[in-house]
Amino acid sequence: MSIASSGLTCPVPAGEADRVLLGHGSGGKLSAALLRERFLPRFGNEVLSVLGDAAVVPAPGEEIAVSTDSFVVSPLEFPGGNIGHLAVHGTVNDLAMMGADPLYLTAGFILEEGLPFDLLDRVIEAMSESASEAGVIVVTGDTKVVERGKADGMFINTTGIGRLDPRFRPGPTRARDGDAVLVSGPIGRHGVAIMAAREDLRFEVEVESDTACLAPLVQGLRATCGPAIRCLRDPTRGGVASALNEIAASSGVGIRLEEGELPIPGPVRGACEMLGLDPLYVANEGIMVAIVAPDAVEAALEAMRKHTSGESATRIGTVTAERPGLVLLRTGLGASRVVDMLPGDQLPRIC
Amino acid sequence: MSIASSGLTCPVPAGEADRVLLGHGSGGKLSAALLRERFLPRFGNEVLSVLGDAAVVPAPGEEIAVSTDSFVVSPLEFPGGNIGHLAVHGTVNDLAMMGADPLYLTAGFILEEGLPFDLLDRVIEAMSESASEAGVIVVTGDTKVVERGKADGMFINTTGIGRLDPRFRPGPTRARDGDAVLVSGPIGRHGVAIMAAREDLRFEVEVESDTACLAPLVQGLRATCGPAIRCLRDPTRGGVASALNEIAASSGVGIRLEEGELPIPGPVRGACEMLGLDPLYVANEGIMVAIVAPDAVEAALEAMRKHTSGESATRIGTVTAERPGLVLLRTGLGASRVVDMLPGDQLPRIC
Repeated sequence: MSIASSGLTCPVPAGEADRVLLGHGSGGKLSAALLRERFLPRFGNEVLSVLGDAAVVPAPGEEIAVSTDSFVVSPLEFPGGNIGHLAVHGTVNDLAMMGADPLYLTAGFILEEGLPFDLLDRVIEAMSESASEAGVIVVTGDTKVVERGKADGMFINTTGIGRLDPRFRPGPTRARDGDAVLVSGPIGRHGVAIMAAREDLRFEVEVESDTACLAPLVQGLRATCGPAIRCLRDPTRGGVASALNEIAASSGVGIRLEEGELPIPGPVRGACEMLGLDPLYVANEGIMVAIVAPDAVEAALEAMRKHTSGESATRIGTVTAERPGLVLLRTGLGASRVVDMLPGDQLPRIC
Repeated sequence: MSIASSGLTCPVPAGEADRVLLGHGSGGKLSAALLRERFLPRFGNEVLSVLGDAAVVPAPGEEIAVSTDSFVVSPLEFPGGNIGHLAVHGTVNDLAMMGADPLYLTAGFILEEGLPFDLLDRVIEAMSESASEAGVIVVTGDTKVVERGKADGMFINTTGIGRLDPRFRPGPTRARDGDAVLVSGPIGRHGVAIMAAREDLRFEVEVESDTACLAPLVQGLRATCGPAIRCLRDPTRGGVASALNEIAASSGVGIRLEEGELPIPGPVRGACEMLGLDPLYVANEGIMVAIVAPDAVEAALEAMRKHTSGESATRIGTVTAERPGLVLLRTGLGASRVVDMLPGDQLPRIC
């Protein structure tokens, strides 16, 4: 006789009704309840509610952009957001950096047994809000549960699908001598917020993560500047330094940054000095680097500044034909130093 | 001065060159090396090699099928396969069950610090082989690393995108009174193989996982029987019992199974008796349940039997108008018992 038909099983042990159990990942009744009570009310839409083996959605145009990211940030909640915000913003921003409009998202959850439901609910709520803001719907998902001690609270994978505009294809190989290097907002906030939360550090002014959806900024740039936008990159893991190194290498150009122009907030600078970090390598989750043709600089800055997350957009450097592949930082004293790619991890598990 | 520009860092500690380090998830040089040395040689294709923030692929037709799954199987390797086989088969099979041809796959890896590279290589190799067999390409991916003790070796998420045929849409609501219930192969092998590996049990005859790609079987059914194929379902977590319960509920029909017709291999039956499991609830990773119109039964069985993984395809029951929503098993003695949906987990972390 099966466990199910014995009628003797109490699937949820007393006192455990407020947290995730192994059975929630079984594909049985508890999994169905988790879906019905927690995921569907917040993510519900016509596509997801079918609950088939796969979602069926209209294909947007002739080509699609596809991006995937797993999120393992620690801690799960931090000043300015939680893993749910990152899981949506990280993937929709990757699509936006290709010039694509994010449309569909999948969500795969790996939950640790014992995860409190109220924390899970806050994460789902954050995902739901961020998805609405970004104009994407969660079309399909999956939940697995592992035993206590076999994961760290929760991990989330999101995969995004976006609509491409054949006339707007920014890409890392397109930077040219004389282009301007712009950044859409202050540098270093996300990494410092995570580090402070992790180490329980208190600064005079709390630094909040910049986690935000960049798609509206990109849509603005597309409408205003079109092909004058050469490359877009969101400087997450590895920070602004790594993003610019990748562009310099892919395009075979040099990049010269002006130290005095870098928008590094005072509290970020202070925290980085204390922690021995270089803000150029600290992760961001709500800013982008834009390489823009010289005659489009003012229009691009103006377009970004129309959005809250772009209101302090500014120019930080110039693309050069000299020293191809290298990123150089010119300091206030007129000296230059190479801003190399990071060999290993400065801050692990930042997203 | 940044860590990177100090020139003093040895990113890979001596004696650790054969395993995953936290730095491999940093987005820096070690991440790039991991990608270049391990992932690209096995997954490489024109789309993936661009390494943009997102992949750009042609949209197949007017509608697409999208499926996502995270894999947390323990142990990572087991008789008949490893987590890499499951990560490809699981997602392409979900697409196939919608009647779709799998085309593109994304791969998100969460690696535990210390994971041996040779194990990672075997998993990537398995994914590469399985993807080739299934006719899919890995178009984009992501790797994160968490500290020792914060994951269990590795977790993999795959998301698949498939081409839909507007004239072939099997679905769980389409079962009708009089339809036949077919199964494409022996029941219960995957779950028993995992359980035996986990508990280090030895049986007289080793049971191997059935992990396999079902897309060719579905393509055969589509070509031979078309719309006479009402529903397809791969009975993974929760087994054949859960898959049939979902169909019975979605279609508002009853399902009657004949115990004597269930293709349960002797070693699976023996292992289940020893472990106190019901084979109908044990996970499978390479078989499907097909609900087929009465006049297409022979053609469907013949089509499935042309493929290695379908060679023992057989009929196990009938859809009925009686007892809608219920799955009943008629035993050899003529008695019937209800085969309910499982409340919690019979075997956790089976995929």
